[in-house]
Amino acid sequence: MALSKQPYKGTRDFFPKDKRQRDFIEEVMATTAESFGYEPYDGPLLEEVELYLAKSGEELINEQIYSFMDRGDRKVAIRPEMTPTVARMVAQIHREVAKPIRWYAFPNFMRYERPQKGRLREFWQFNCDIFGAPGRTGEIEILQVAIELFERFGANSSQFEILINDRKIVDTVFKDLLLCNDEQTHKLYKIVDKAKKVAPDALQKMVNDTGITESAQKLFFQYINISSLDEIVKFLKSNNKHEVADEFAQFVSEAKLAGLTEYLNFDASIVRGLDYYTGIVFEMFDKHPENRRALCGGGAYHNLLQIFNEKPLPGVGFGLGDVTLTDFLNVHNLMPNFEIPLNDVLVTFQDPNGFQSAMKVARELRKKDFKVITMLEETKMKKVFELADKKGCKNVVLIGTDEVATGKIQVKNTEKRDQKDFNLNDIESIINFLK
Amino acid sequence: MALSKQPYKGTRDFFPKDKRQRDFIEEVMATTAESFGYEPYDGPLLEEVELYLAKSGEELINEQIYSFMDRGDRKVAIRPEMTPTVARMVAQIHREVAKPIRWYAFPNFMRYERPQKGRLREFWQFNCDIFGAPGRTGEIEILQVAIELFERFGANSSQFEILINDRKIVDTVFKDLLLCNDEQTHKLYKIVDKAKKVAPDALQKMVNDTGITESAQKLFFQYINISSLDEIVKFLKSNNKHEVADEFAQFVSEAKLAGLTEYLNFDASIVRGLDYYTGIVFEMFDKHPENRRALCGGGAYHNLLQIFNEKPLPGVGFGLGDVTLTDFLNVHNLMPNFEIPLNDVLVTFQDPNGFQSAMKVARELRKKDFKVITMLEETKMKKVFELADKKGCKNVVLIGTDEVATGKIQVKNTEKRDQKDFNLNDIESIINFLK
Repeated sequence: MALSKQPYKGTRDFFPKDKRQRDFIEEVMATTAESFGYEPYDGPLLEEVELYLAKSGEELINEQIYSFMDRGDRKVAIRPEMTPTVARMVAQIHREVAKPIRWYAFPNFMRYERPQKGRLREFWQFNCDIFGAPGRTGEIEILQVAIELFERFGANSSQFEILINDRKIVDTVFKDLLLCNDEQTHKLYKIVDKAKKVAPDALQKMVNDTGITESAQKLFFQYINISSLDEIVKFLKSNNKHEVADEFAQFVSEAKLAGLTEYLNFDASIVRGLDYYTGIVFEMFDKHPENRRALCGGGAYHNLLQIFNEKPLPGVGFGLGDVTLTDFLNVHNLMPNFEIPLNDVLVTFQDPNGFQSAMKVARELRKKDFKVITMLEETKMKKVFELADKKGCKNVVLIGTDEVATGKIQVKNTEKRDQKDFNLNDIESIINFLK
Repeated sequence: MALSKQPYKGTRDFFPKDKRQRDFIEEVMATTAESFGYEPYDGPLLEEVELYLAKSGEELINEQIYSFMDRGDRKVAIRPEMTPTVARMVAQIHREVAKPIRWYAFPNFMRYERPQKGRLREFWQFNCDIFGAPGRTGEIEILQVAIELFERFGANSSQFEILINDRKIVDTVFKDLLLCNDEQTHKLYKIVDKAKKVAPDALQKMVNDTGITESAQKLFFQYINISSLDEIVKFLKSNNKHEVADEFAQFVSEAKLAGLTEYLNFDASIVRGLDYYTGIVFEMFDKHPENRRALCGGGAYHNLLQIFNEKPLPGVGFGLGDVTLTDFLNVHNLMPNFEIPLNDVLVTFQDPNGFQSAMKVARELRKKDFKVITMLEETKMKKVFELADKKGCKNVVLIGTDEVATGKIQVKNTEKRDQKDFNLNDIESIINFLK
């Protein structure tokens, strides 16, 4: 029986058009990160499972991770996320290097998912983290990077927004104001996460089922409906939570100074399940009605290095997946067309003895950084221009019987509709014609 | 117990310096491939194991592959090489696209190896393949790409060479001249592979043990000692193998026309174990006495699409691993120094109220493609220049109490030892100063 030509479920074959698209995305990501002085890094494809057991969320470990025993009986996993790896790497070097540490990467991950729109088993994810920034400024800068990235893709505040919350606020509201025990807090986290997706009745029932008091329920609904940064500060103050209110007000004030607030809104439903967040948590949303979904998420975490017996180092980071980003760029017409490659010259010969001249001119032009495709057998004149079109070549070289006899080549620029004969050795003149 | 900070055995953490090095290698590879009109592609990290069972060598499958059952009971493997994947992808599209198809990739692979110099469990490999080229021209072009790549890294023919053989020659010599049966052929393949590494006595004994006749043994040693392209053609002719001789002579003649022969030598010990090669086989060798090892290998294969029930499509390709390449570049002093990042401007403030001005000037400069690092808290004057040095910034921005009061910033270029005050809003003048 013949083998299947299709890729493994939930993964993709990147044909040249797809790969150019991914390269474009990666290029914009790298340029943006480097414009803030972030440095590139990467980690291994496999990590020992215990690294994820120590830090990743339950769902990831129990349902999504690709793990197995290696031939030496070590339990390993294909990386499903980058944060544990980056924490492990920072733990190695943080004592010796100047803070803050600014790093970015664009690794691939695997998660055992049911493939659907915006979600695959293998995906790439831009990861950007800052470690050791003073006060709340790391949070500010990470938000800046995320916004700048989307602006560099050509997007603006009519197309995306960032919804933000703070785990300290969530904790204060749930524990101090709603007086939840741990179990109720855990339930409320899940309820809040679904708040926007369920009908008001259903939401009311879920909240009721947690067993919190009626007055707590009332406060909960008040809280969940807050949608501006200033409002949440007011809410906290009016409930006598001045310390948390002041701390968040400080963040809001810096965000204003940094010019971020046109993109930022408060949203109580953003909690982000992963255990490691301790400060702000945020998600970027597509505003397009057909693609109303989270594009990326992140937050601040203070305790990631503890699993390596290192003292705490504050970190802030975000991850942005290539699948949802590609959908975003497509739906907003921000994805350039990569159907046709970009080449410069198609070198052809119409006489079998033209091979050597073709090889020579191609080699010389490549040395001058031209992208040159050589046809490797005689090409009929009528096929030359169709081929040049398909390969994105604006120039063609023709070498017929006359040219072989005289040591010349003919060059045509199909855009300028210009053509000229050149001596094969006069590469400089050929280059001037091509420019 | 604290978790280990070290990466999984045989894999690497890429800290910024290491990642910049890998990015540099990848950039040169991509530029070289694209200068020949090769297009980028990529495949999935996981493939179903049966794809490798159908085509990869025994050692890879039995000893080196990372395979496991997924949660849906499919047997999958982390890719240990690219050829099966590229064959699967080409099988999907080869009917519709113009030939030749020219593709390149730089994927990571995993093989269960004992880590040692030049060999790790996770490595990256440049893969370059051409499909559907006429006659032997695909072989010529692939060799051109490999040579051009090393030339672009700054290497020359005193530093590397390509040792070449042809599977048709090997088959003809073993089967028609030495009259080996299949078992003897199989043994001789392994013996030839070791020919250079064992003492003459030991080699003689191994050949003797195959049971081939004395005259065949004589012919074998004559063959194994041939080291030039012209000599092997003569050898074949003198043994009346004119068809194979003429076909290889045609290849040699084209290699000469294409200007490749300064790098090429015949070597009977190059056979490359993988089953799929059918034409030339080659390996590139470092000539440095301290690093005398194979850098990359490849060859021509005609039958890879048959496992997908597709008609044969001739292919030629090579793979070049990042670990051996990095050793080569280091031993020949061809690796640039990536210790210090390249940035443009370090923005600092010496008055706590300088934060807003710092954010603003940084944002404006980034829009003009400068790489700008902002210090996120007050930075003492005496620390500014040390930091700028470490971060590779030639310019620093200073915002002290006077500057905050007057809406100005001070810019210093540490290279030109020049400095000037600017109005914060006069971004154009600042940019002109930085250039």
